[in-house]
Amino acid sequence: MDAISVIRTKRDRGELTPEQIDWVIDAYTRGEVADEQMSALAMAILLNGMNRTEIARWTAAMIASGERMNFDALSRPTTDKHSTGGVGDKITLPLAPLVAACGAAVPQLSGRGLGHTGGTLDKLESIPGWRAHLSNEEMLNVLDTTGAVICAAGDGLAPADKKLYALRDVTGTVEAIPLIASSIMSKKIAEGTGALVLDVKVGSGAFMKTIEDARELASTMVALGTDSGVRTVALLTDMSTPLGLTAGNALEVRESVEVLAGGGPQDVVDLTIALAREMLDAAGLKDADPEKALSDGSAMDVWRRMISAQGGDPDATLPTAREQHVVTAPASGVLTRLDAYDVGVAAWRLGAGRARKEDPVQAGAGVELHAKPGDTVTEGQPLMTLHTDTPEKFDYALKALPESYDIAPAGTSFSPLPVVRERIA
Amino acid sequence: MDAISVIRTKRDRGELTPEQIDWVIDAYTRGEVADEQMSALAMAILLNGMNRTEIARWTAAMIASGERMNFDALSRPTTDKHSTGGVGDKITLPLAPLVAACGAAVPQLSGRGLGHTGGTLDKLESIPGWRAHLSNEEMLNVLDTTGAVICAAGDGLAPADKKLYALRDVTGTVEAIPLIASSIMSKKIAEGTGALVLDVKVGSGAFMKTIEDARELASTMVALGTDSGVRTVALLTDMSTPLGLTAGNALEVRESVEVLAGGGPQDVVDLTIALAREMLDAAGLKDADPEKALSDGSAMDVWRRMISAQGGDPDATLPTAREQHVVTAPASGVLTRLDAYDVGVAAWRLGAGRARKEDPVQAGAGVELHAKPGDTVTEGQPLMTLHTDTPEKFDYALKALPESYDIAPAGTSFSPLPVVRERIA
Repeated sequence: MDAISVIRTKRDRGELTPEQIDWVIDAYTRGEVADEQMSALAMAILLNGMNRTEIARWTAAMIASGERMNFDALSRPTTDKHSTGGVGDKITLPLAPLVAACGAAVPQLSGRGLGHTGGTLDKLESIPGWRAHLSNEEMLNVLDTTGAVICAAGDGLAPADKKLYALRDVTGTVEAIPLIASSIMSKKIAEGTGALVLDVKVGSGAFMKTIEDARELASTMVALGTDSGVRTVALLTDMSTPLGLTAGNALEVRESVEVLAGGGPQDVVDLTIALAREMLDAAGLKDADPEKALSDGSAMDVWRRMISAQGGDPDATLPTAREQHVVTAPASGVLTRLDAYDVGVAAWRLGAGRARKEDPVQAGAGVELHAKPGDTVTEGQPLMTLHTDTPEKFDYALKALPESYDIAPAGTSFSPLPVVRERIA
Repeated sequence: MDAISVIRTKRDRGELTPEQIDWVIDAYTRGEVADEQMSALAMAILLNGMNRTEIARWTAAMIASGERMNFDALSRPTTDKHSTGGVGDKITLPLAPLVAACGAAVPQLSGRGLGHTGGTLDKLESIPGWRAHLSNEEMLNVLDTTGAVICAAGDGLAPADKKLYALRDVTGTVEAIPLIASSIMSKKIAEGTGALVLDVKVGSGAFMKTIEDARELASTMVALGTDSGVRTVALLTDMSTPLGLTAGNALEVRESVEVLAGGGPQDVVDLTIALAREMLDAAGLKDADPEKALSDGSAMDVWRRMISAQGGDPDATLPTAREQHVVTAPASGVLTRLDAYDVGVAAWRLGAGRARKEDPVQAGAGVELHAKPGDTVTEGQPLMTLHTDTPEKFDYALKALPESYDIAPAGTSFSPLPVVRERIA
């Protein structure tokens, strides 16, 4: 077995054998297959594809590269959610405590943002004192005592994926559905959750720009999860416009707390409830009532305990940015488009996101929206407020926005896309 | 400009801009673009291709990465030959002194063998004392005083190609016509020859297995040379069977000296004369008579001076292998096929070639043929003799050979392919 013959097989549109896949993942993890060989293979996979059998084996080999967690000792069934990433996607924050309040255990291993999409850990770190990094023991303890934990994945989980992901990031090989699906699913299966709901975003602000690509990614991941004994369901949800009215770290925490308090923007509430129902169903808790858990304050109670358990102060004042700039509507009428990608880029440029893994983020930076597609706007009213600690970035952020929205004449009939577009199980 | 955007352009089937190409070749040479980025780009080029404009710019950028030689001070016109490599392809050895004997200067920068094809420098190194590595000054001196020089290319010529070639070798990205063409032509154009004849091999023992691929490679290289002011012609020549009756280092030197002495196998003589005529024509020496230069001993005189000028003893006894094994014909009839690739692999396994760049080669090892396609053979007669210093390799070498030839019933009408199949100018 050697790297060149494996590369040639895929380059020449062949099917990789189970032995080739096991060998190349293991040898790459050990450093015997070099980065320049794996990147050539990744490009061949991106351009020539992998079939379901190859993807399943690739995923299994990445899982086998590291440790597997086990939640069998918990008294509650485990259920988890993964989002492919979007703008204003703070759903994990209200969702994890909500599902825990309904009786499930939610081990939510999350990541940081890179580029125009935010990261759950970055958002929670705007809460004074909150710690993302827990030992396995600490993580199990928070999960057991509060019902939910949101923290960074440990280094022991699918190290092959960690190495390959960093390589794909610098070699133009991120956008390959087989590699995206196996990357996500290897971590989730190794994590040991019993049930998994995938929130596959589709639209300008998402990784998958078309419903066809989103369907392919979703069905690939559902098959991988199901075949590994994880009850897996996917919702394809809209990311043509930002979720809710905020994109940024502390801004999104504030909005999430509003949802937990029984308020918040309707699309965030709707998606949180839809995902909660799927997670609870998949965990076998079919009689749970997530709407009640939001309205009676029990989800908020779990949130407060969960934040406290990781060193955070749920009553602390969240950071705000030092400077604001208001963008006003240039005309009156109906807002028919507000582009998720453009708003994401503006938030990123304001300091909410990072260009490189080692960059810091600003807790208070981001974009606050005052209208969403379907809303009527009046000339001169605020459309969005930009927040940053570094006002010299306003100009750069504003450059992302001139084509970001459309206003149609008043009285135009317009229906925004539903938040949940399809379900794949 | 950054590596990921260049990779993405080619990955998504776009055309690379001149600025992208110049930047990526320069940045790769300087180490700013990493190996794993260049290998992903090479795989994208292999799978998605480059058009003629891109290939020309890629070649120019590789030339610009190093020094260019200049032969303007010579009193004779320069003309060079490049072969894409085959089994038993010793043509450079008689050809360079022959063309020099006819009045041209032949600066033949050559390489070593890797895999089943031999290397010109490896062959000449079987002559006691002969040195492949010359300084630029020594090289010019040998060329000026003898009319021909065969030596290793200096490190200063197209260093980007040197680095990229080594990378392609380990990443399964060798077999890309745009990269092969630009690799060959960048070195030949930087070398500064006025005329160039390309011997593009086609058949089982060649890089190009089909006449269509060989045509594409040849016409790509002819266009690159012509556009750079080098008078360039290509011959597509047969490599379905080995050239001549020997494949190995000293074995091939011996056969080359036979040709220079006016004898030798007909196919080697025919191809040497055909290439000499093209080289002399391209150099403007249309009245030269290469057949006379072979028969009157003047080509042999140049050979002896050229070998001596590089420290070799033209009268020395050449090394022979310690052990021989004879393969006999299993039936009587007409030999209709003798596979170049299989014979090349057998010679390589006997010790004539190397698996890795740093491996040594055996001077005496190789395969000697006693019949060629079209010849009548009798059951039990020797078909080929295997030579090696390491007889434990006979079995391994023999494994390459059982399917290597076909013998048809006596009286079967059979015409071998002509050596020169097509000419592209």
